[in-house]
Amino acid sequence: MQMEKFEVNILGCGSALPTTRHLLSSQVVNLRGKLFMIDCGEAAQLQYRTMKLSFSRLNHIFISHLHGDHCFGLFGLISTLGMLGRRDDLHIFAQPDGEKVFRPMLDYFCTDLPYQVVFHAFDPQKNALIFEDRTLKVLTIPLKHRVPTAGFLFEEKEKNLHIVPEMIDFYQIPFCQINALKAGADFVTPDGQTIPNERLTHPATPPKRYAYCSDTLYNEKIIPIIEGVDVLYHESTFCESRAERTKQTMHSTARQAAEIARAANVKKLILGHFSARIKDENVLLTEACEIFPNSVLASEGLVVEI
Amino acid sequence: MQMEKFEVNILGCGSALPTTRHLLSSQVVNLRGKLFMIDCGEAAQLQYRTMKLSFSRLNHIFISHLHGDHCFGLFGLISTLGMLGRRDDLHIFAQPDGEKVFRPMLDYFCTDLPYQVVFHAFDPQKNALIFEDRTLKVLTIPLKHRVPTAGFLFEEKEKNLHIVPEMIDFYQIPFCQINALKAGADFVTPDGQTIPNERLTHPATPPKRYAYCSDTLYNEKIIPIIEGVDVLYHESTFCESRAERTKQTMHSTARQAAEIARAANVKKLILGHFSARIKDENVLLTEACEIFPNSVLASEGLVVEI
Repeated sequence: MQMEKFEVNILGCGSALPTTRHLLSSQVVNLRGKLFMIDCGEAAQLQYRTMKLSFSRLNHIFISHLHGDHCFGLFGLISTLGMLGRRDDLHIFAQPDGEKVFRPMLDYFCTDLPYQVVFHAFDPQKNALIFEDRTLKVLTIPLKHRVPTAGFLFEEKEKNLHIVPEMIDFYQIPFCQINALKAGADFVTPDGQTIPNERLTHPATPPKRYAYCSDTLYNEKIIPIIEGVDVLYHESTFCESRAERTKQTMHSTARQAAEIARAANVKKLILGHFSARIKDENVLLTEACEIFPNSVLASEGLVVEI
Repeated sequence: MQMEKFEVNILGCGSALPTTRHLLSSQVVNLRGKLFMIDCGEAAQLQYRTMKLSFSRLNHIFISHLHGDHCFGLFGLISTLGMLGRRDDLHIFAQPDGEKVFRPMLDYFCTDLPYQVVFHAFDPQKNALIFEDRTLKVLTIPLKHRVPTAGFLFEEKEKNLHIVPEMIDFYQIPFCQINALKAGADFVTPDGQTIPNERLTHPATPPKRYAYCSDTLYNEKIIPIIEGVDVLYHESTFCESRAERTKQTMHSTARQAAEIARAANVKKLILGHFSARIKDENVLLTEACEIFPNSVLASEGLVVEI
């Protein structure tokens, strides 16, 4: 049901060196029809189109860090939105350098954009609220990488109660009062009788949470922040046999991703950001599943329900 | 035969708005194993890999103009070459603004490149030699577009004569003299007899020429420059039914491309840079073939022998 939809679309899950098997980092979170992009590697707009996502429903882009494989797709996407006649502001969240490096490019190449690109700077070393609307909060997750990097926690806000249609009919409750009931109000009948809300509604679906952690060294400090999330995407660039390279490049192994998932008691783990050197990612999956069985491999085109 | 190979690989032939049918402008000219890229739209490096072209054989990139759909792929490609451990300089030919807009991006994102990116500025309004090596000349072709734009003419240099093996054996000509014969020298036998070169060689294969003209308004001034080329790639963004839009955006129709091909007496025409609005490019092909029958449609992955 579109009203309840909360899912993540994987556009690309390769690491810096693109291959014929994997595109560069980019995802789109769909919360009840609103689309939020996380990272925008080269060719993200092409995969976006291939996955038939709606350009008009995209208003917010969150960039985890300023490595090219996470943001070189921005220029093309921004140009395309302009050519499609976009009018609404596009909001880009990035660390403070973001605007400094992207704005001159936009000023040169996108001179006739029919809309505004609005940059919002965040401090990647803080766990802070950086975006909020009626249904969603987005918080940063401080990560440890070679450059300032933040993950993102997408938290649904408390949701409405579910109306029990039979009771609405039974008490002939007018339509204009439905929203109040969903928010928890009792109903007072025309003759003054109070019908408690519990008789008219079912409990709300619990709010869900999605955490995106890429790129990062194994970092236990994120555990309390992502504790209990429904889905965790955690980078697993390498496997344990390349532990040294993993540390040197400030990435994580599949085993480490799984250890974080287990310690944070998350419900599901998506592995991604695969090194080009890994020819068969099942090695990563096996390694992760030994620690955290509910692990899956990301892949281009994969849609995971939160 | 690799020694004689001269071909163009089409990486992308869509216009500014990418679609699921076409990638953005990029081509690779292969002259006897040396690769020369023309334009580098977003995702060019991905298609480059898909077409199994060799990254190590690429040393020169020619950018026709500074619209994003012709150059946003440069950053990713340059990063990738660095990650692959490239040591040789990479030469980028562009109008003077090129270095001004690209260099700051490279300085920020590609801080640890193990090779140099060398920019060469050209004047897009001149028909001038901008590159030359032992086998090839590249000249600019002034085009008319919304920003300074040049096409490129790839001209093979005069080639060597073909040795007649039987005559080499007959006169017992030492191997060290073969190159001199190929260049036109006569052979003098140990007893002083002169064997004229014509008896030892067949004529050289005539040098070939490839012209790339995109993006441009219909422009008869290019005709003498591209006169008689073996293959002409000419943009044909629209068909005649959208003549007004064509003029307004400073592009060409398929008919105009064909008219240029016919007037310049070229041998073959490749149509490309297709508008996203054109659902079936056969409309363009039909329109062009009425004027110039030896026309073909570009497509991603197409390789055309020059």
